[in-house]
Order: sequence, then structure tokens, then C-alpha cells
Amino acid sequence: MERITAKYYIETPYAVEKAVQVLAGEQSSGTFVAVPGETEELKQRFAARVENIEPLESVTQPAIPGAVAQQGLYHRANIEVSWSVENFGYNLPVLVSTLQGNLYELTQFTGLKLMDIDLPPSYSDHFVGPRFGINGSRKSTNVTGRPLIGTIIKPSIGMTPEQTAALAKTLAEAGIDFIKDDELLSSAANSKFEDRVDAIMRVVNNHADKTGKKVMYAFNISDEVDSMLHRYEYILKAGGTCAMISVNSVGLSGTKKVCDQGELVIHGHRNGWGMLNRHPLLGIEFPAYQKLWRLAGVDQLHVNGIQNKFWESDDSVVRSIEACLKPMFDGETVLPVVSSGQWGGQAFETYRRTQTTDLLYMAGGGIMAHPDGPGGGVVALQQAWEGAVNGLSMQEAAGQYPEFAKSVEKFGGK
Amino acid sequence: MERITAKYYIETPYAVEKAVQVLAGEQSSGTFVAVPGETEELKQRFAARVENIEPLESVTQPAIPGAVAQQGLYHRANIEVSWSVENFGYNLPVLVSTLQGNLYELTQFTGLKLMDIDLPPSYSDHFVGPRFGINGSRKSTNVTGRPLIGTIIKPSIGMTPEQTAALAKTLAEAGIDFIKDDELLSSAANSKFEDRVDAIMRVVNNHADKTGKKVMYAFNISDEVDSMLHRYEYILKAGGTCAMISVNSVGLSGTKKVCDQGELVIHGHRNGWGMLNRHPLLGIEFPAYQKLWRLAGVDQLHVNGIQNKFWESDDSVVRSIEACLKPMFDGETVLPVVSSGQWGGQAFETYRRTQTTDLLYMAGGGIMAHPDGPGGGVVALQQAWEGAVNGLSMQEAAGQYPEFAKSVEKFGGK
Repeated sequence: MERITAKYYIETPYAVEKAVQVLAGEQSSGTFVAVPGETEELKQRFAARVENIEPLESVTQPAIPGAVAQQGLYHRANIEVSWSVENFGYNLPVLVSTLQGNLYELTQFTGLKLMDIDLPPSYSDHFVGPRFGINGSRKSTNVTGRPLIGTIIKPSIGMTPEQTAALAKTLAEAGIDFIKDDELLSSAANSKFEDRVDAIMRVVNNHADKTGKKVMYAFNISDEVDSMLHRYEYILKAGGTCAMISVNSVGLSGTKKVCDQGELVIHGHRNGWGMLNRHPLLGIEFPAYQKLWRLAGVDQLHVNGIQNKFWESDDSVVRSIEACLKPMFDGETVLPVVSSGQWGGQAFETYRRTQTTDLLYMAGGGIMAHPDGPGGGVVALQQAWEGAVNGLSMQEAAGQYPEFAKSVEKFGGK
Repeated sequence: MERITAKYYIETPYAVEKAVQVLAGEQSSGTFVAVPGETEELKQRFAARVENIEPLESVTQPAIPGAVAQQGLYHRANIEVSWSVENFGYNLPVLVSTLQGNLYELTQFTGLKLMDIDLPPSYSDHFVGPRFGINGSRKSTNVTGRPLIGTIIKPSIGMTPEQTAALAKTLAEAGIDFIKDDELLSSAANSKFEDRVDAIMRVVNNHADKTGKKVMYAFNISDEVDSMLHRYEYILKAGGTCAMISVNSVGLSGTKKVCDQGELVIHGHRNGWGMLNRHPLLGIEFPAYQKLWRLAGVDQLHVNGIQNKFWESDDSVVRSIEACLKPMFDGETVLPVVSSGQWGGQAFETYRRTQTTDLLYMAGGGIMAHPDGPGGGVVALQQAWEGAVNGLSMQEAAGQYPEFAKSVEKFGGK
């Protein structure tokens, strides 16, 4: 019978083996009492199994509070635990409750982070995964050989649909591939969702009629299920190609329901991620996280960016990009969305470390504040990526591309 | 214009005032650039506002990594920030993205926890809240003047529908008010959801026909939206009164969609909560958390228990119970579900500290392992609560009630 294996990084005030057995028991049939007709075979069938324990260092201070070591030492380890798919079948919420449920409450642990999940082949029969992913996003925007270049409308909130549409027109004419709403904006008092779709799709459709290129605009549909489905239809009827969901805020079931409609690219925003990930010994790591959202069907997923303005390290960002690009089964992978303080200068290090152009590369000020205006900003980003792929350094690229040279001059001193 | 106010407990390597301004800016219109037609009035309309700062101690070690203090000190504070409801209207996911979104990523913070939320009166016009709550749960089970007494079927997973139903029959005959599936079980290979509903509702309905008392059984419907709605209907048609959702795993939008059906009591299980709450300076506190799920419409919500087997302190459990019982608007409050290592001995301290019987009081071994069998176990729990409400100590109650005396003898030494 197929099994699902989860990898955790743990810290415990007890002997590691004992603590891990408690975890396996708590999250399956561990507190098995005698039941009439029960056999040892049945018990084994549903019991979680400890597959591997790799002991690491011991420390004298617990990572998170809630338990005290009698001997004053807290032992760290990488562990692997597996469950039969018979326990939950193909039910994402119950899978999450099994892998990330009450175990965080156990006094057997002073640290517990879900690092990765191995899913069995039959999951690919039950979950379609991303309908569009990288190839679908490229096809829709007609971009090959380089990352999709995108931007976020700023200010985050406060602009009218007409102001937003005017900015979208400028950006479309500048050659942008992708534009998104901010996650703080869905339907605000001065920017009703439908009015914004109307105003922006007029611009996007006109531009497509003229040039043959349809800019992908990710409208933030995050809301209750019925409202999301209504907004989804509204975008579709207006000729739009993409909807955005704040996946943590909406949740797995609501997000999957939207993805299952299968007609729009789903842009997955991970705001709230810091709460789940920022502590090194609590929560979940991105390689595990992105698999859950791929199963739900998200096509594009945020991964932060190299030299970002947030707390996350470059190593972590690189790991996240690699996780997105690794096939889970046959079929589409999820397009990594690179953002936060990007202006083109990071293209070189991003390409050097990931060796891919399968990215949605988002810049804000790097486009809007370019000395030649947004048109120069978009061109400069395309040039940066062309240079990076051709093995140029940032300085060499600046010598070769005039628009990018102006970016380096303006943003490179940061 | 009405505003929503959020209270955070923060730690920052910068001056507190500056860090809090960055938070307010990042989560509203802070990076406002000049937009044609923009006025100062419009800007103010959507800007988050810092309402209060209460400085606390400074420490030399950051609570979570990701930022380093130049002066070696990390400053803690309680802060309040408010947003106009015009920013998001009555959209729970966007409210969550505003209050709990990218702010956890900011290097301006080495600790950030959402402590509470103040919601404006108009929210009561847009959100029905719990349809059943405390009064509906009491009415359905015909329990007055004491907590509902409940239990969880164990082992968590591995029993057949027939075995589960046989146990439910024993528990019903013992006088139990409430039984629930474990959160690890929804539809397993040897316990298909529909088969379990059939087998258990036969028992529950027979018992109701004989005695007039319908035991509330919380079937775990957690799954994709369509499956949850299908299972919901299945329970309803079988004469069931309750469905359980693992709220963190399903998410806000999926949970609200189910609650909006309005015909079954919704039992909200908070597994995964430790991940969101266990660190003192990361995540969310229960007073804020439970408001979100009440807005979604959850009727019963887990709060752990006094002297529980998990890491949580009694103080925290008491605060959680109080939060559930505090009216948010007119209408129903959410029924606190007390569980984890409870056997009746904790009734005295629970009542002393909360002065309420508006609880669903869950015990496992305390019922099943009672020397007189489950019947004695249920009676002993009722006695414990009667004693607690009458001001008896545990010892005095043991002197007065023979079944409870046996519980004290068996479980009191722990």
C-alpha cells in the first residue's frame, strides 16, 4: 500500500526515539485500546511508521517554550514519518491535519518544522495540479526565452479603477507581461471589483487588439467561495486570463474550488507566510508548503526574491525556486513569482544560482521610476535577463545595454 | 467611517514608533506615490493609523531571527493600529491579509503577534455568526444547567463503522451528550464516511426514539468544498445534527461556505493551532483567532483544557474560554470545547476560574476507563460539575458522589 512520508526538523527535551514515537502515535492509531474484533494487522495498517532518525546537535536553551528538559539538554534531529494513504485517501485538509495537526502541541517537542513531503504516484491520478503553470502562463502572455516581467499596482490601495486602468495602459505600452492587484485590495470603497475589471480589461483588450499581446492581469478575487466564483466568471467574461488568491487567507478548500474551474491562471499570493515560516524550528518550510498548493491547483506561487527587502535569506529563496521547478508528477510545475525589492540588478545572481528563466519576475520602482519612464524600465529588465543568461556580469550588461545602464545608475547604489 | 483596530505585541530592533509606522504603511497606502488626481484626503481615507503605543521592556536577544539591532537592543511594545472598513468591506480573507499578511516578513520586527481585533457594529449586519452556538447546542442535546459532556472515539483511526457504532451505542446508553470523530479520520479505507454515518445514525436515532434524547455526533466532513457540502447533506438526511471541520486545514472560505448552509451545528477543531500560537512573539492569540471563526459561523470551538496534556498554560486556556463567551455582537456566542486529558477532576478549577457551565466538556479515558464502565464515567463527570457549581472541593465532591469518588481514586493520582 502506498505511503506518504513527511520530513521534520525537531527539537525535544526527551530521547529523540521516544519523542518521535509519541508523534507517530498521536497522529495515527497510537492510543489504540482493545476493540472487539481488532487484530494486530489492522493496527499496523493505520499506524504511522518512523522511517528514519538523523540525530543532530543538542542545545541548552529550548527553541520554543512549553516543555522543560530534566537533563537540561534539548536534542535536535531530522526525522521521517510515514502514513498509509489508506488513512486519509485524497483529502488535502485531512492530510494537513495529519502532517500539521496536534503534533505542534506536544510537550515532547520544543521545536517542530515540517520540511518536505513525499507523495505517492496515485496522487497524480486524483489531483490535476496546475492547469496552466509555467507553459500555460508563457502561452497566455506569448513570452519565451526569458522570465515574464511583471509589476504590482502601487499604491496598494486608494486608487480608483480609472487611475488603475491609466497606469495599466502605461505599463502595457511599456511592454509589460503581467500586472497584479495588491493583496490588500479586492473590492474597496473607491474601487469596486467589477468596476476595476471593466476599466482594466478595456485597456488590456484594446492593447491586445492593437498589438496581439494580451497582458496578464491578476485580479484579486480572494473572498468567500460564492463571491470568488462570481468574480472568476466576471473576469472570464471580460476576457481576462488570471485571478489572484491570497492562499493562506482563503485556505486550501476554497482555493482548490476556484482552481478546479480550470479556465483562468491562478496567481497564488502567500502573504502571511512569515507567520508560518520565520521561526527556524516552528511551522513549515517552502518545499512542503508549495506541494500542498500545487495539489490544490495553483499555477503561480510567490517565492520572494534574491536580495529582497524582507527578512528571508537568498539561500531560502533559491531553495524555494528549485522546489517550484521540480516536477512532482507528470504535468505542469508551478511558476515561481519573484518579487520584493527587485529592479533587474538581481537577475544576475538569480540566474547564476537557479539557471532558469522560468520565472515571473516582478519589479515595482525598478519599472515606474526608470529615468526613461516605464518603457525604459521594462526594457531594462529584459536586458538584465538577456545579459544574465548570456553570462555577463551586471557591469558588463550595463556596458552593453543603455536602458539597463540607467537602471544601474539609479538603483544600483542601494 | 467605521474602523477595525488590531492589537499586536511586537519586538523591534528599531525605534518602536518608526517600526510601527512601517507596519501601518506596508499594510495600507504607505508607499503612496504621486497619482494624477490624488488628494491628501483620499490618501488619509485608506491609510492605516497608529492608535496607540505602549512601550515595554527591551531585551538583548531577538525573539525570532531575520534582523539585527545596531544598538544591540530589541524593544517590545503593545501597539494598536486601525484601518477603515472602506479598505476591505466585509471580506474575511482580505481582512486577514491586512491584519496578518506581509507584516510578519518585515525586518522592522523580530517578533509580532496579533493579540486581538475590534470589529465595528456593521459587521454584525454582514455576518450572521454562529447559527446555533451555546443555546443551539444545548437545545439540540437537551442539556441545561451543566456543561455538555462529550467524548472522542478512540483509537483515532482504524475502527470500522460497525465498531464505531457499537462504541457510540455504549456511550449513548451511558448518557453522553456529544461524540466526535477524531480529526485524523474523515473517510478511511475501512471506514468510508457514508458507511460510518449510516451505522452511527442508526444507533443515535434508535436511542432518540427510545429515550427522547438525540446524542450530538460530530462527523468530520473536512475535505474539498463540494465533498463537504455532499457530506453535510448526507448527515442532514440521516437525521444528524452536527458536522466537524478542521478549520485551519480547510481555511476560512471553505469553512464559511459550510457554516452558511445553516442547518447543522458546526464543531470547529483547531488542530494546527500550536503552529500559529506556541511562540510568544509570533502568530496570533486566541482572542483574535476565535473572532475570525465566529464571523465565519463556527458554533463550537476547541480551547484545550485546564491541566491539559499539551504545552498550553491554564491562564491561556482560561483566557480562551472567556474570549468565546464574550458577546461580539447581539446573537449567539461560540461554545468553548474543553478537552485534552480531562476526567472530571479539572471541573473544580475550570469552574472556579471561569464561573461558567457553558462548555462542551470532553473526556476520553475518564469515561471509557471508569471502574463502573462508561455509564459510571459519564455520571461521574456530571457529578464533578454539580459539585464544582455547588462550591464543593474535589475531595468534598468525592465524599458526596460514589461514581465520582471512583474517578478520583483511579485518575486523581496523576
